[in-house]
Amino acid sequence: MTLHDLTTPALLVDVDAVEANLADMAAVLPGSRLRPHVKAHKATALARWQSGFGHAGFTCATIREVEGMAAAGLGQDLLLANEVLDARRLGALDARVTLAIDSRETLDAAVAGGVREVLVDVNVGLPRCGIAPDRAGWLADRARAAGLTVRGVMGYEGHLMMYGEAAERAELTEECMAKLLAAHADVGGELVSGGGTGTYAVNTWVDEIQAGSYALMDTAYSAAGVPFRQALTVLASVISVTAPAGEMPGYAVADVGLKSLGMDHGNPTIPGAQVWFCSDEHTTFAAEQPVAVGDRIRVLPAHVDPTVALHERMYLVRGEEILDTWPVDLRGW
Amino acid sequence: MTLHDLTTPALLVDVDAVEANLADMAAVLPGSRLRPHVKAHKATALARWQSGFGHAGFTCATIREVEGMAAAGLGQDLLLANEVLDARRLGALDARVTLAIDSRETLDAAVAGGVREVLVDVNVGLPRCGIAPDRAGWLADRARAAGLTVRGVMGYEGHLMMYGEAAERAELTEECMAKLLAAHADVGGELVSGGGTGTYAVNTWVDEIQAGSYALMDTAYSAAGVPFRQALTVLASVISVTAPAGEMPGYAVADVGLKSLGMDHGNPTIPGAQVWFCSDEHTTFAAEQPVAVGDRIRVLPAHVDPTVALHERMYLVRGEEILDTWPVDLRGW
Repeated sequence: MTLHDLTTPALLVDVDAVEANLADMAAVLPGSRLRPHVKAHKATALARWQSGFGHAGFTCATIREVEGMAAAGLGQDLLLANEVLDARRLGALDARVTLAIDSRETLDAAVAGGVREVLVDVNVGLPRCGIAPDRAGWLADRARAAGLTVRGVMGYEGHLMMYGEAAERAELTEECMAKLLAAHADVGGELVSGGGTGTYAVNTWVDEIQAGSYALMDTAYSAAGVPFRQALTVLASVISVTAPAGEMPGYAVADVGLKSLGMDHGNPTIPGAQVWFCSDEHTTFAAEQPVAVGDRIRVLPAHVDPTVALHERMYLVRGEEILDTWPVDLRGW
Repeated sequence: MTLHDLTTPALLVDVDAVEANLADMAAVLPGSRLRPHVKAHKATALARWQSGFGHAGFTCATIREVEGMAAAGLGQDLLLANEVLDARRLGALDARVTLAIDSRETLDAAVAGGVREVLVDVNVGLPRCGIAPDRAGWLADRARAAGLTVRGVMGYEGHLMMYGEAAERAELTEECMAKLLAAHADVGGELVSGGGTGTYAVNTWVDEIQAGSYALMDTAYSAAGVPFRQALTVLASVISVTAPAGEMPGYAVADVGLKSLGMDHGNPTIPGAQVWFCSDEHTTFAAEQPVAVGDRIRVLPAHVDPTVALHERMYLVRGEEILDTWPVDLRGW
């Protein structure tokens, strides 16, 4: 089977680019130094590939991701790096599950749900989840009093992922991690978890980095200078071409749009073309070289994570050849 | 079952708001004057509800939508208002399927796929699909020579859906429809199809309006003054609250984000709150009234169509009560 046989739009994963990304990351952060985040690809098959590079623990953003990883036999050490108010589905799993908590309520949910291990989620500067650093010890004490094992702390410097140049990013990351380490001194436990694809190279303070995007990458991270290969594209068909008329330049339409591309980081990129706009199932673009109805093109999404969430499956490809089909089996909640 | 029992994020459909929207639209455009577009809700159960208001024909944007409608017994008169290059799945259906064509290639695909009826898609000003008006007759002749029934023309004035005030929108719509009617004079056939939720009230030139968003609505169409009720919200849980500290105002985090909200029209709206930003599974917001961890809130997406495509199911609700669960069964391609 080749690309020509696929119904478009179709999610393509370049096998050699992923292989190189996984190898490059494992060289910098071997084994337990990396806890790959599955939210970026939502495919247990890709997670299994990552585990083959020596990473046994994984990071998840939703209960469904944790469930799917456990069902796939990848439940050796799953961290739900997010707060939940009903943890019963987690407590019921035959897997090692560690849950982030940042409040009395999320601690109570962990206990009520039968979760046994937690990390205290510490706010290190991103205005999102996380307890104030000086309150982390209080929450850890309370968790231990409730019978939970507190494995340590996590803190996500998400506001720095695409911030400035590497040197400035490193300096600001250090400030964030100083907060996390101060909290860790109060909390105890063996684990300090944090970071992401944007800071994997400069965050030297945590025990493990929660990077996800590095595996598939996207145009936003590439623009920020992160040195992994763009492995994910959306295959599209050119379904309509309009010739120039008067002052109106010519343009073409591909059958990808708002329902096959994550749009929060803006329009997708079509190499050798200028993207005009996207509709539900269309992208209008002007190409430098002539295109014809029926041509197949590869579209680069601006943000991989929500793009993946729109597709049922991804095709593993090398050039024009399709090597495998993988379900995007960690979607939903 | 009530809202409190739901896992969040969850797509909620307000039964009374939809009922009112369907009734209001059917009063203006009864029976075949409306060909509801299913891309806006992707749920055959909602389409069946629309058919109960007297609309027997439906508009689709993807082959999967056509297949799903046919499988649900709603295949009396399905228009795929989009161009495709492989129509075999359409030709195989036990349903009346009419396909848009705008080129020799898409005509050839219709013939090769066993499709029997087509509409000539005419470019009326939106730079997307559609043949130039003065070429429409040529394509119709060619289609008839190939043995197809040409039912007429369609033209979508999509660039006007949220444009300006109603009077200006009406004037520009008239200019677009003049092009469509000129093409129709050359093409022949009984059907002139066009329009959408933004122009349903002012486009008096077509036989049928292809409106979809009116059923569920969104904040973008509401801001444009379209008088239907917002029926779709995403139920979220407040999972973290941070008190003000120094110059930093307080904020809260809900468990909805880029993977549960269509983001192409911008951030969602939370009544009584200011949305700061969305991440994959989070929305950070500042509320006017205090919120607590565990609170349930309703988030209004800026654009319904891609929001629906991110969810497996929708819950039909009246107040806090859940009346039914509907699969979003027209997703994918």
